[in-house]
Amino acid sequence: MDWKGRHVLVTGGAGFIGSHVADRALASGAHVTVYDDFSTGLREYVPKHERATLVEGSLLDQKMLDAAMHGVDFVFHMAANADIKDNLKSPRKCIDQNIVVTQNVLEAMRAAGTKEIAFASTGSVYGEPKVFPTPEDAPFPVQTSIYATSKIAAEGLLSSYALGYGFHTWVFRFVSVLGPRYTHGHVYDFWRKLVADPTKLVVLGNGKQEKSYLHVSDCVAAMFVAIDKAQGPINVFNLGHPGVLQVDDSVSIITRTMKVSPRIEHTGGERGWVGDSPRIELDTSRIRSLGWAHTKTIEESVVETLTFLMANPFVTRRGGV
Amino acid sequence: MDWKGRHVLVTGGAGFIGSHVADRALASGAHVTVYDDFSTGLREYVPKHERATLVEGSLLDQKMLDAAMHGVDFVFHMAANADIKDNLKSPRKCIDQNIVVTQNVLEAMRAAGTKEIAFASTGSVYGEPKVFPTPEDAPFPVQTSIYATSKIAAEGLLSSYALGYGFHTWVFRFVSVLGPRYTHGHVYDFWRKLVADPTKLVVLGNGKQEKSYLHVSDCVAAMFVAIDKAQGPINVFNLGHPGVLQVDDSVSIITRTMKVSPRIEHTGGERGWVGDSPRIELDTSRIRSLGWAHTKTIEESVVETLTFLMANPFVTRRGGV
Repeated sequence: MDWKGRHVLVTGGAGFIGSHVADRALASGAHVTVYDDFSTGLREYVPKHERATLVEGSLLDQKMLDAAMHGVDFVFHMAANADIKDNLKSPRKCIDQNIVVTQNVLEAMRAAGTKEIAFASTGSVYGEPKVFPTPEDAPFPVQTSIYATSKIAAEGLLSSYALGYGFHTWVFRFVSVLGPRYTHGHVYDFWRKLVADPTKLVVLGNGKQEKSYLHVSDCVAAMFVAIDKAQGPINVFNLGHPGVLQVDDSVSIITRTMKVSPRIEHTGGERGWVGDSPRIELDTSRIRSLGWAHTKTIEESVVETLTFLMANPFVTRRGGV
Repeated sequence: MDWKGRHVLVTGGAGFIGSHVADRALASGAHVTVYDDFSTGLREYVPKHERATLVEGSLLDQKMLDAAMHGVDFVFHMAANADIKDNLKSPRKCIDQNIVVTQNVLEAMRAAGTKEIAFASTGSVYGEPKVFPTPEDAPFPVQTSIYATSKIAAEGLLSSYALGYGFHTWVFRFVSVLGPRYTHGHVYDFWRKLVADPTKLVVLGNGKQEKSYLHVSDCVAAMFVAIDKAQGPINVFNLGHPGVLQVDDSVSIITRTMKVSPRIEHTGGERGWVGDSPRIELDTSRIRSLGWAHTKTIEESVVETLTFLMANPFVTRRGGV
């Protein structure tokens, strides 16, 4: 796809992955509107560029969203409530911020005549899969969290609009994404805990959970490859890294990089929290068949994330979780 | 399960399937609260029984719902926006009435300490399946309608509450259900059209769509068998009839039963509407393995439905679709 001169809107464009998407679209020659309410996004991440515009507002504000959508050719819908651990406590927030908001975006697109949208979904939609690595057409899973439920609902809204209104949609099911500007997830949590108390670290679960991690630059590159090469109305891609890292191994890398030697306490149990998947490893053959490959190892991603966090303590200013 | 003396709440208890569920619970000795806003339910369907109570209200009214949930042991959540054909035009209605409302029900249950819930989902969650008959763990489908999307989201809310709050949940994915009190769907539509003009019948699609139909008495019997015998936290069951009926064959049965000979006009295309599945046939081995079996043929169900409609023209008074 030739992005030059196209008008791209990135929801959550001041967030971790969203801001990288905005940068990449700008580098490809697009005009970019960053739409963010700074509930978890950071002003430091908003691209400073002559082709970049910032709209500060909520996606629940349909009028503001409709106005921002005017003239937009392509939407990256990256904004979300990603408060996975706690969403059982505030399910309505998750429904509003992930389902209703997605429908608002689709309605704004329909009103503006915008027909192309890429969406940040999650590998958590596979619940506790029986097949590893898990392909896109794995056996129909039972949803194990409100977060994943809200993401699968948003995916369904996209595909329904694709069939009903001729939209082109790209759904990306991410593993955990790491790298510069990362401000959410276990590496962030561990880092904050260790800054506060380098002598002790509480790890949720038994530390044996196996997760896959993808570097944000590889993640964004994969999205752009898919959009370039997969042109059907509904395109679903797992984005991940082959292999997994045990949480305990992740802790070792983190403590080594931070040069601390805490006493590790496990809270116990196979899952870090209700709805946590003990193992996430996605089959990424589909995106690889289009020519994409990862360039960073999982360990490199963890180290780079920590290096960023240590050099940019302002990230703890972010709101939300 | 011994229903005697238990307090059961049936949302949509004045609707087609919900009112049969209420009757069955009453016959089993339960106390039954029918909760309905009569947007599509009918007062004629509310059970008249000393152990039955009617609460007239919206499930979007959390306070009223919370009050009705007091002392309830078991919920049948049958209320829904089932306006499948038109939900692309009013997606927000579908999100509110099928997702938000389900979350309201779960929250009311949590506040009241109620932990058991059966939910009316749909075989439409399989989208356009690649496997027939389609089992519960068919390959992860792409959602093709807002309606099915909202149902799969509601299913996910139930399973998340099962894991997070120790709920016991039964999810039933229905094929089209027919029988007495039926007031929604193609037999109803065809009947109304033929009453208005017996000389002509417009059929959406090419008439070759293959659907399976289950008699409401078989459907409700299956639900009670599953609740009795499947006691895990999350129980998902397809409910359907083996084999399918082509829409054109259904038209033949209807015109024969109504003794009319209309000219048939097909609007054409494999699907009756956007999101219509050209073929729905569910694998029901799971529920059959618990000892349930259907007792009525598809043709018997169609005929009995028509007989009911012809004898009870008041059903056209129902609101909504």
